[in-house]
Formats: sequence, structure tokens, C-alpha cells
Amino acid sequence: MTPTHRVDLNCDMGESFGAYTLGHDEAILPFVTSANIACGFHAGDPAVMKRTVRLALRHNVAIGAHPGLPDLVGFGRRNMALSPEEAYDMVVYQIGALAAFVRAEGGQLHHVKAHGALYNMAATSAALAEAIAEAVYRTQPEACLYGLAGSELIQAAQKLGLATANEVFADRSYQPDGTLTPRNQPNALLTDPAEAIAQVVRMVKEGQVRALSGTDVAIRADTVCIHGDGAHALEFAREIRATLHHEGIAVQAGPQHRAAL
Amino acid sequence: MTPTHRVDLNCDMGESFGAYTLGHDEAILPFVTSANIACGFHAGDPAVMKRTVRLALRHNVAIGAHPGLPDLVGFGRRNMALSPEEAYDMVVYQIGALAAFVRAEGGQLHHVKAHGALYNMAATSAALAEAIAEAVYRTQPEACLYGLAGSELIQAAQKLGLATANEVFADRSYQPDGTLTPRNQPNALLTDPAEAIAQVVRMVKEGQVRALSGTDVAIRADTVCIHGDGAHALEFAREIRATLHHEGIAVQAGPQHRAAL
Amino acid sequence: MTPTHRVDLNCDMGESFGAYTLGHDEAILPFVTSANIACGFHAGDPAVMKRTVRLALRHNVAIGAHPGLPDLVGFGRRNMALSPEEAYDMVVYQIGALAAFVRAEGGQLHHVKAHGALYNMAATSAALAEAIAEAVYRTQPEACLYGLAGSELIQAAQKLGLATANEVFADRSYQPDGTLTPRNQPNALLTDPAEAIAQVVRMVKEGQVRALSGTDVAIRADTVCIHGDGAHALEFAREIRATLHHEGIAVQAGPQHRAAL
Amino acid sequence: MTPTHRVDLNCDMGESFGAYTLGHDEAILPFVTSANIACGFHAGDPAVMKRTVRLALRHNVAIGAHPGLPDLVGFGRRNMALSPEEAYDMVVYQIGALAAFVRAEGGQLHHVKAHGALYNMAATSAALAEAIAEAVYRTQPEACLYGLAGSELIQAAQKLGLATANEVFADRSYQPDGTLTPRNQPNALLTDPAEAIAQVVRMVKEGQVRALSGTDVAIRADTVCIHGDGAHALEFAREIRATLHHEGIAVQAGPQHRAAL
Repeated sequence: MTPTHRVDLNCDMGESFGAYTLGHDEAILPFVTSANIACGFHAGDPAVMKRTVRLALRHNVAIGAHPGLPDLVGFGRRNMALSPEEAYDMVVYQIGALAAFVRAEGGQLHHVKAHGALYNMAATSAALAEAIAEAVYRTQPEACLYGLAGSELIQAAQKLGLATANEVFADRSYQPDGTLTPRNQPNALLTDPAEAIAQVVRMVKEGQVRALSGTDVAIRADTVCIHGDGAHALEFAREIRATLHHEGIAVQAGPQHRAAL
Repeated sequence: MTPTHRVDLNCDMGESFGAYTLGHDEAILPFVTSANIACGFHAGDPAVMKRTVRLALRHNVAIGAHPGLPDLVGFGRRNMALSPEEAYDMVVYQIGALAAFVRAEGGQLHHVKAHGALYNMAATSAALAEAIAEAVYRTQPEACLYGLAGSELIQAAQKLGLATANEVFADRSYQPDGTLTPRNQPNALLTDPAEAIAQVVRMVKEGQVRALSGTDVAIRADTVCIHGDGAHALEFAREIRATLHHEGIAVQAGPQHRAAL
Repeated sequence: MTPTHRVDLNCDMGESFGAYTLGHDEAILPFVTSANIACGFHAGDPAVMKRTVRLALRHNVAIGAHPGLPDLVGFGRRNMALSPEEAYDMVVYQIGALAAFVRAEGGQLHHVKAHGALYNMAATSAALAEAIAEAVYRTQPEACLYGLAGSELIQAAQKLGLATANEVFADRSYQPDGTLTPRNQPNALLTDPAEAIAQVVRMVKEGQVRALSGTDVAIRADTVCIHGDGAHALEFAREIRATLHHEGIAVQAGPQHRAAL
Repeated sequence: MTPTHRVDLNCDMGESFGAYTLGHDEAILPFVTSANIACGFHAGDPAVMKRTVRLALRHNVAIGAHPGLPDLVGFGRRNMALSPEEAYDMVVYQIGALAAFVRAEGGQLHHVKAHGALYNMAATSAALAEAIAEAVYRTQPEACLYGLAGSELIQAAQKLGLATANEVFADRSYQPDGTLTPRNQPNALLTDPAEAIAQVVRMVKEGQVRALSGTDVAIRADTVCIHGDGAHALEFAREIRATLHHEGIAVQAGPQHRAAL
């Protein structure tokens, strides 16, 4: 019987740089279905990019470009006052750089997921969202754009007819309007792995998430963000993968939802 | 009557950065047939790259990626002890970044020319030359690799079956072995524009250059490097273009020579 | 007779970088009394810093460190979400780097003026202002901190007992609360040089500026920002200097106002 | 009884960067007497510099600036074709930046040790050695310059009357002329910790080292380089410290040898 539900597990990768190692890419790859590879602005360098693309291909994991802000020391996590045009330019640049490594290895770029502050800003700014979607559309029109479920980024991508993946988070709590509880508020994080996994299963199967307030919110879960570092990353990845399988949910990367124009 | 001789005039472009302007790209574009666009390592930034690609397309000038060493403060002119693998990685990265802007604008990448110290090192190091040729071959196999006439880079590219363009210099004197007279030696530069242009005409028509020693050397001139800055850059570009036309030499970018495998 | 009024004319300098030239430092130096020298984050590099320090010493102009955000491509003009601790760290770093060149040349660091977005953010954020003042206090307690007249930065510096210089702008209009009219609003800029100079003279002599609304606001003018680039920079500098002299206003850098603790 | 022999144990520190951690600074600090703190060019950032200076002060360890080449991705280990003036400029800049953090914390800069490729190039190039010594002399004339025992750097420093520390390596073998066996040659590394420690003890007590050829060479050992990373770094540091104590050798940072002018 074919599973009626499906979800992608994605993980940020290739965030090492020069002499510096970050994350456990090789260990986590067996458990995820798509890899977001840093492109040298917030993390990663050309050698790391090549190595990570090869690793992902070897594990048959879908490859995405993971463009970030030009802020290596801040790991792309500090908001910057960017014009939409600047956002477009830096995303085109980074997609191109990563795509060249993918092409050199005989692979295909599957998706694009913005990193950190760029991801967050594009979730709520229509102008930045449109700029990023445009960058994908003009360079990799077949690629899928990952974005926060229901965000401006998803909407901008759909307007251009791009494939999209609504991203949800296992370990974050949600607000009644479907947004994430900000990290500086109480109960922003789900610390119990079992609860986090149950939240994902419900989002995938029922398209609902229980907000902190206790009410249910509709949410579309095409892909789940899995963390690649931290003490329990590997264990959690293994566990969620096993549970999803047990629940009859297919774990695989796209083809994702593409809006009819 | 179709001209029996042909040569390309190339110029480094897109070397501005952020608030900094360098060169006179727009003024020089009408006189050249190919543009080598900096890719953000030694010069250029995403905004400059987009702008320059658009300019080149508007002038119908062939577009090349111009990858350099990661040394913005040294403008990519300081030799660095690179491994061939590091050279491969940084060239793949930069080609990809530039190619994305070209694709976004509906154009096609025509060639690759390494910049400054990377160009010079690859002219004499077979290992670096092979790394760079490999980077082009695996990412843009249809692109033409520009290199110093007769250099290791040209040979490495031909071994892979890449199209190549032997580059000559109007304003540099040559040694009996066909190499450039090093800049720190007397008479390295031809200061008389008429003499410089005559040298090019002879290289194109006769395949010969008079070395400093007085003997003639065989040289293949597929493309001539035109400088885009300096007080007399524009005037010289105009003049060489006019003289080449007058001499019945077609001025156009490739398709260049592609070695039979 | 000793002039009863005094003001400093400061100018941003040393904003060239590698192969890139910006500004007309040498031409403008005879007309100003203090130089804010970029420290390598938003502009400037070690070679430019040394050269500019030497130039300033030769012209007997007071030397200041001009720290900015780590954003070369954005010239330090894009706001970034910095923690106060990050601001402290980057200001300590840049002050130290510039002070080393000053010391190597036998000079003394006279002041510190934050650049661009860092200056603007510190004008209104008490936390950032305190961090920057603390950085000056712990590394160069004798230095004067320049800041927007009446801003949080000036107040934070005074709390620490630092010397301060209230900075005013010749070519910007003011709001009834003494702040600058934002650039995106009408009449933000004074385009008539005569009017701009008259505004400065009145600020210095009367401690008043006519706001856009037509009402007068009290303002303290210790130092005036003179632009070093643009077509008419030099001419304007010459003119304001001459007018100030004619008005009996001494043009000289500090010692500035130091609050009693 | 006062020990008649003395040596310093130094270790490179503060080589973390942004989100990236490198080394085990806190664990190794109890065993060494001087810390070479990276200055942001090859490694380190302002936050890391502040934190490391504080750590070193808390452990009462002498603080040195550890300037490197502007090559973060290469960790300052790739030779670059630098002019002496460029070397001077980048060393002044980095010394200043680090010294500011030291001053802000109420400490004093004790020494300067160049990093990686800069250290190696200055060991054999008199021109680079003089440039670096000059940079120390003009910014921190009381600081001690660490350099490869007997190298051009030590000689250049002595000519300027700077204090110097001849550095030796526990785990490297020596050539009959007193230079290190290049890493790409057999037996370049001493893999037996006991042998490495015995080599140091003999260098300190007898001023001799047994070259690979079997002959003895005179060598002056003022300071020993201890590695801060690697699996056995901590264990080795503990062991060498204990052995030196047991051998009656005082382990302490300078005041080092200062040549009479």
C-alpha cells in the first residue's frame, strides 16, 4: 500500500569553514532526505561545498542551496537592513556558486532554502520574499523554494509558479496565527523529543498544530527542519525517521507542491 | 570578401566593489568583443556582477567569468601558495556565481579567464593549469578558456577538449621563447601605442612577434587584452579597433579554436 | 582678541581600500581640523590607514578612529542587529588598530567617531551608545567621543566622564526636537551652500537652529561634519572655513567639553 | 635554590571564530606561561579576542599578539607574496587591535609572535623580518618578539634592541644547520612524547640539539611551542610541564633576552 502522507526531512549542512568544523554531516545524512548546503556567505567555503555536495550525492539526498547574509562572524543570524535588490543579488550569486558544484558532480539542484536572518526576514517581508523567489525563478526555475509554512516567501514563490515546500519545526511551539513562538518567549521550545515528534506527525497527517494557547491551527507540513548539531541531533533524527515510518508516512524529498499559475 | 584574419578584443570589467568604482566599463564596451567579469574574490560584488552582465548583453559583447584569488585588498595580484584542489574549488565557485547572473539575464557564458596572480601562476604551473581547465570542463564545457598564448593553461584546456583562446598583449614585449618580458625588466612595456598596435597586427596576420632580442617568435593571437582603466585606455581601444578594421582583420569573439581530442 | 566662539571641522578620511580610491583626502585636509580615519571594517585597510595617519599628522589635523560595521560591500551603511557587546568588541578592535598606526607615527589619538549605521544606531539606542562609550573609555580614556548633538551617544559618554563633541550638519535640516530630518523626507537636505553655512554660523554663535517647522531649537555645535567626496566638497570646505574665520569663530579641534562627573 | 635554567611554554590561542570553536584554551592555560592570541586575520574575532585576553589574565599567563596573513579560509598557512611594507602594515594593525583588548582589561601586552606562513616567511626573509620587527618596535617597544631560534626574525629584532625569545619545537626534528626538518621530509616529526620532552630539556640545559644527521647543533631555547589542539595536546602539556619542573627548570615567561645595542 502506498503511504498517503509524505514529508521531507531537511538539514543544514556544509557549515564548516577552512580549519573549522561544524555539524556532523556524515552522521546525519542517512536520516534526512534533503540537505541545505551553505554557500560561503554565512558559512561554508568552496572546498566544503564540493565535499558536502559529494557526500549528499553519495547518500542520495536532495541538494539545496542555502544562501545567507554576508556575515561570517555572525553566522548569518543578525538581521541586516537589505534592499530587495541586494537580497536578489546575493541569492543569485550563492545559488550559482552551489549549483556549479552540483553540476560538476553530475547532480541536480533540487531546492533553495534561505538561512537564518535572511529566512526570517523573508518570512514576513513581502518585498524580500519576492526578491528571493525571483532569484530562484531566474536561475533555477525547476528548483523548489523552502520557506516557513504559510509565510510571505511561500506566497511569493507560488505567485511565480515555483515549486514550494512549507517548512515546519519539530521543536518549536506555534502561535494561534500559525507563526512560531519567538525564541525569547516562554515555552518557545519543545524540549521533550516525544512531544516534538508527535507534533510533526499530527501536522503531516492532520494538517493541524496545537498552538500554545490551546487552539488548533491549520498548517501545511511539506518538510521538517532537523538540526545537525547539538548533543542529541543524531538521536533525534533517528527517532523521528523511525516514528514517521511507523506511522506510515513516506519520508522523501519533493516533487513538492507547485501552484497552478 | 570575408576577412581571412580574426581576433577578439577582451577587457577586464565589473571590478567595482560596493561604494568603490573602478574602470570605465560603459565607455570601453563599444570597442571590445568580450568582457571578463570579476566574480567577487579579487573584485566585484553581486550587484556589480549583475549590472555588468546587463551592460555586456546590451552591447552584445561575449561574457566571460574572471575568477581570481580570494584577496580583495591585494586585488588578486599577490601570488598565494594554492594547492591545485584549492584552485579548482575557487574557480568552480566563481564560474557558478557569474554564470547564474548570465542565466538570470537570458545570456550565455562564453568564456573563462583567470585574473592576475591566478592567471600568471596557471601559465607556468601545469598542476594549477589542469585544475582550472578541469573546473571549466566540469561546469561549463562549452565555454572557451582564455590563457597566455602557448601557456600551460592553454595546453591543459586543449587536453580536455575545451575551446581555447591564446591571449596576447599589445603593450608588453616578448622574450625569444614567446613569454612576456617580466615587468621588472627594462623595456617590458611598449609605450608607443602605434608600435603596440603594429605588434598586434603582425601577431594576428603573420603569427609572429619580434622578441626584444630581435629574433622572431611564432605566436598565436586569438584574443588581445585591452586595459579598461588608465588615462589612455579608451583612446587606445578606439585606435586598435580602427586599425584592425582597416587591416581587414575581423574583430569578434569566438567560436575559438577547439583541439581535436 | 581671542575669539569667543570655536568650532571643529571634521571629515571622514582613509576610506580608500586596496586598489580602490575614494575621497580627496589630501585636498581637503588643509580646510579641516580633525580627520576621522576608517579602520578596515566598512572601509580602509592597513596601508591606507598608515598613509592617512601620516597625511593628517603632516597637516597638523587631529586624528580620530572611525569604526564602522563589518560590512565592506555596504560601506557600513546598512543597519545590523548588533548586541551591545558586539558593538563594544568591534569598536575596541578598530580603535586599537588605528591607535597603533598613530602611535607608530609618534602621534596621539584625539577622538573617536562611529561611522554610518553604527553612528545612527548609537544616536538613539542607549544600550549601543553605552557600549561604544565604554569601548572608548577602556581603551582611550583621554579621547573625545564625537556624536550627533544631544544624542544618546553624547549622554553615554558624558556619564563616563569622557570628553565629547556634539556634531552638527551643515547641509541637513533639523526637526523641532533637534533631530535631523530623515533623508527620505522632503527638504531633508540644504542644497544652497550659503544657507548651509549660515545655519552653522548661527548654531555656533547662538546655539540655535531654525527647524523645518519654523521654530528655533537649542543645539550645541562643537564640530561640523564636512564631506570629503562629491563634486563640490572642496569648494564648500574652503568656503565654510573662510566664513567662520570672517565671523570671528576659531576653527580648531578640542579640547572639547568634558562633563564634570 | 633558584633554578639556573628557565624556559617559557607558549601556546596559540583565541583561534575560534564566530560560531566556530577551535582549540581547548581553557584546559591548556594552566600548563603554559604565555598565550599567543589570534588577531582576526587568520583566526579570531573581536569577541573571541576579548574572551581570550580575559582568560589569559585570569590564569596569569603572559599575553602576546599573534598576527597572521589575511587568509581566514586558509588559516594563515598559505604563503602569500607580500611586500615588506604590506607585512609591516598588517602587523601594526593586528598588534594594535589585540593591545586594545589587553588595555581594556587592565593588562599589558608581553610579546608578539607571527602566525603560520607569516612566521615561516619571516624566519628566512630578512626584509620581512625587519618589517615585522619594525612594526613591534614602533607600536610596542617593550614587547618581546618571539621567533624561530636563530632566525632572521630574531636577528632583525635584536638589531632594533627589542627583547627576543628564541622559539624551539618539542615535536620537530632539526637539521645540522639548526633549522627545522621540513614537514614533507621523513622523520620531520618526533612522535614519541618522551623523546620530544627530552629534546626540550637538553636544549634548555645544554643549548644543544641532536640533528637528524646525528651531529649536535647549538640552539638557544627561550620558549617552547605547545600545541593547543589535537587529541594529546593537554596530556603533553601536563607532561612537559611536570618534567621541566622535575629537572629544576623554571617555567615562566620573560623578561627575555634583550640585545645590547
